[in-house]
Amino acid sequence: MAQTLFNSLNACQNLKRISKIFKDKEYHLKNLIQDKNRLEKFSLKINGFFYDFSRQRVNDFLLNELFELARETKAKDSFSKMVSGETINITENRAALHTATRDFTRNHIVLNNLDVASEINRVNKQINHFAQKVHQKQIKGTTKKSFTDAVVIGIGGSYLGCEFVYTALKHCIDPIINLHFLPNVDIDNFGQVIKEIDPETCLWVVISKSYTTTETMANLNQALLFLKKNNLDPSNHLVTVTAKGSPGDDPINPVLDSFHMFDFIGGRYSVSSAVGGLALSLAFGFDIFNRFLKGCHAMDLHALNTPEEKNIPLTAALISIWNSNYLHYPAQAIIPYCSALSKLAPHIQQLYMESLGKGATLDGQILENQTGVIIFGEPGTNAQHSFFQLAHQGSPFPIEFIGVVKPVYNKAQAKSKGVYNHQELWANMIAQGQALAKGKHDDNKAKYFTGNRPSSTLLINALTPESIGMLLAFYEARTIFEGFILGVNPFDQFGVELGKVLASNIREQIKRKNEDTKYDFNSLDPTTKFYLDTLFKGSL
Amino acid sequence: MAQTLFNSLNACQNLKRISKIFKDKEYHLKNLIQDKNRLEKFSLKINGFFYDFSRQRVNDFLLNELFELARETKAKDSFSKMVSGETINITENRAALHTATRDFTRNHIVLNNLDVASEINRVNKQINHFAQKVHQKQIKGTTKKSFTDAVVIGIGGSYLGCEFVYTALKHCIDPIINLHFLPNVDIDNFGQVIKEIDPETCLWVVISKSYTTTETMANLNQALLFLKKNNLDPSNHLVTVTAKGSPGDDPINPVLDSFHMFDFIGGRYSVSSAVGGLALSLAFGFDIFNRFLKGCHAMDLHALNTPEEKNIPLTAALISIWNSNYLHYPAQAIIPYCSALSKLAPHIQQLYMESLGKGATLDGQILENQTGVIIFGEPGTNAQHSFFQLAHQGSPFPIEFIGVVKPVYNKAQAKSKGVYNHQELWANMIAQGQALAKGKHDDNKAKYFTGNRPSSTLLINALTPESIGMLLAFYEARTIFEGFILGVNPFDQFGVELGKVLASNIREQIKRKNEDTKYDFNSLDPTTKFYLDTLFKGSL
Repeated sequence: MAQTLFNSLNACQNLKRISKIFKDKEYHLKNLIQDKNRLEKFSLKINGFFYDFSRQRVNDFLLNELFELARETKAKDSFSKMVSGETINITENRAALHTATRDFTRNHIVLNNLDVASEINRVNKQINHFAQKVHQKQIKGTTKKSFTDAVVIGIGGSYLGCEFVYTALKHCIDPIINLHFLPNVDIDNFGQVIKEIDPETCLWVVISKSYTTTETMANLNQALLFLKKNNLDPSNHLVTVTAKGSPGDDPINPVLDSFHMFDFIGGRYSVSSAVGGLALSLAFGFDIFNRFLKGCHAMDLHALNTPEEKNIPLTAALISIWNSNYLHYPAQAIIPYCSALSKLAPHIQQLYMESLGKGATLDGQILENQTGVIIFGEPGTNAQHSFFQLAHQGSPFPIEFIGVVKPVYNKAQAKSKGVYNHQELWANMIAQGQALAKGKHDDNKAKYFTGNRPSSTLLINALTPESIGMLLAFYEARTIFEGFILGVNPFDQFGVELGKVLASNIREQIKRKNEDTKYDFNSLDPTTKFYLDTLFKGSL
Repeated sequence: MAQTLFNSLNACQNLKRISKIFKDKEYHLKNLIQDKNRLEKFSLKINGFFYDFSRQRVNDFLLNELFELARETKAKDSFSKMVSGETINITENRAALHTATRDFTRNHIVLNNLDVASEINRVNKQINHFAQKVHQKQIKGTTKKSFTDAVVIGIGGSYLGCEFVYTALKHCIDPIINLHFLPNVDIDNFGQVIKEIDPETCLWVVISKSYTTTETMANLNQALLFLKKNNLDPSNHLVTVTAKGSPGDDPINPVLDSFHMFDFIGGRYSVSSAVGGLALSLAFGFDIFNRFLKGCHAMDLHALNTPEEKNIPLTAALISIWNSNYLHYPAQAIIPYCSALSKLAPHIQQLYMESLGKGATLDGQILENQTGVIIFGEPGTNAQHSFFQLAHQGSPFPIEFIGVVKPVYNKAQAKSKGVYNHQELWANMIAQGQALAKGKHDDNKAKYFTGNRPSSTLLINALTPESIGMLLAFYEARTIFEGFILGVNPFDQFGVELGKVLASNIREQIKRKNEDTKYDFNSLDPTTKFYLDTLFKGSL
């Protein structure tokens, strides 16, 4: 499938022209936001989800051109193809069917003789069944104690999304099983986790599609040694989430239960599959996980069926492209005014930067335009007291604020300066967008604010499983739309391979030294030799 | 003090010329690192701290010019002036004496009739005394139970540094008192924290210089209400860290004890003062905190007394300026291959972006050059499975790797693929720098790596209080040197003021509505009105 290079698209050439106009003073945000109808024109709402882009550097004719870009690149068609199971991930010759994991309309899709909906149904039933038996204390550990904790061994896409949802939901729902995360091959990650658990009452959930991920297998081996030292039988404490037929799904290695993941769902899009589903169902019960899926599904249907001009994730993707490719902002901050969403930015950082941080187009041409940007963020108001100095007076970057209309806490609340804490939080969230857009003149240049700094605001009603699902699926759809429009594959990640190969060479050297203390590293380049000598010496 | 604008400095004009040369193929990192002596030439070491910048895009004549820049801007003189107590923070008419909090040589400095060293000594003795009495159960709560936990109420500079050091040290030292952090005015931050503590055995440490910080006072009020509801007397559960004579230091509001902070130490540089010292001494004992101070002091002495060419934080500052101003990288990632350092990046994000994210020079001219860049980061190898796709194939940014030679965990360890987990971790850290520098040719453009992507590596010996102190003081000194060289004030933060003023206006509106439910927001701009109406309605 040959593609037109992004910059030579009709819409892109128009956008380039328009971007010059936006340097004019009259397009400064402080002037644009004077329009009384601006919020109405530049915001979109669906049930339980609101997106305000009125403080982005956009206007009517620019937006028209952005929607033209979406049409010219057939973004919505590609999304439909994705949902219907076409091989949209062409570099890896796979479908991308994370939406099927929460498709309550159960579209009939058959892939490689596999009925997708019934397979997903089967796994979800198995999860429900297993979680219930753990909660009802029918499944217990070696010493017949019931389970209180679970350690999730998995990295990247088998970790960040689950941690985000778990952190968000545990603010409103007390976990039945507490989750702990062991992603890093760092032995001190392991050392810290085992301080937090009792081995007799702890499950270990191992997540790896191939069951060969180096970090995950190293942590599994460490966990197995730990169980052995504690005289616990792994087959009473271990569960796996893995591909059918992988070593983690082999009766030779007996485990409590094994749940399948599929090659048509990539790691960073797998929260709504068994990858997130098992651990989240253990933590909160399957019903809560199912409500989360319903939230995802609502956003999927919106992304799939809504025309360009009313489509929230598509509009957000277009604005992101405008900001990165035409206004040349190198980064975007995600600032939830909600402590419970503290793990959203790390998850979206992965989702977005791994999906869009590419050097080549889908059809193998070197990219000339910007694709992904840097994503980072911390909760507000914390971020205001941290890096917002730079956001207001240093090099600008767009910010996405996220507000939650109702807080969870409902016991006695103090007023300070006449307002409750949640009201203070919102006063700040509202004020930041204003300050960034408007700026402020001051003859003292240290107190001068240029303004014209763009932001969006997302609102959800409350920290419910449904809302968290919508939020997650919003970012997934937005990232995918952006990939489709930019002409890159949002589902592959060849850029992580080189590091793996080189690490493997170095590992081989370490292994030889472990086997033979007389082995030296003299054949290596001086830098590698220095680091390996230091590692074996144990001090600088 | 009139200053030459940065770009018109002699060294800067030379650097601009050199930066063009660095576009040549022969200056690609894959070629530069062929030099067998490169690591030796481009690394620096002091006792327990190693800095490798051999994979930065530098060479001999460039470095000479960078050191010229440091001399031309008298960076080291400014650092000396700072340490000796001169009013280096001229926009706020203050000294910047965080180094005095760990100056075991006890230089004699008198500021506003205050003998700085003896004041700091006094506060440290008071901290030691108080922490001991808590640990020895001589100080107890209202119900005569001894303390097990402390909630730290403070935001920004009164939070991030302390959290970084606490997180790092608790991997190697079991806390005597567990710390919890309540920075955010989000009521659900409070709701989550109180799930983790028993009110009868919990201390509340309130940190605010002026004792007027909005978020901190709102959380204090919420904590007071909570104590009251639990029939606990605040004077048995509250301690304050605040300026002498502030409302937090007033006998009218009785507390267990009150510890002074000083206007010559800014928030983001205050970890080694009572701001970090009280909470860290409660957690680990004063002796551990004192060892941390000794590590800071060792780095301070190095920064102060070492010539430009051997000065680690100064060299790092110069390379950072080269990367931002001449190679035009918009960001820098901090990637510790160490889970215990997971809170380093958020702290340095504040330290660096708030110190250097400025719009004007020290003497009030609009900046034409880049100052601060975006700082972000997550631990490796996690980051490899998250955003490193973009680092390798998307828009490049420099990365700082941090390695710890010896791990903490010393119990039975499993081998995988012939290596221990800590060895696997290092294999990856070493490989990433290689891969970024070298790249890899591939006719398949999806698998092509451009290389020429710069990185540094820092090593510390182990997770000891001394090492953590050195690491912290390294980043402080580096940030300050960068500010001095760029001609901006690394100690003020006027950019956070506008948001505060606007939030205050909005708070006033909310307050009026709280007092009179009939009050409407019709006089406000439609956006603010929409958000306030939504907040009061409680749903979208």
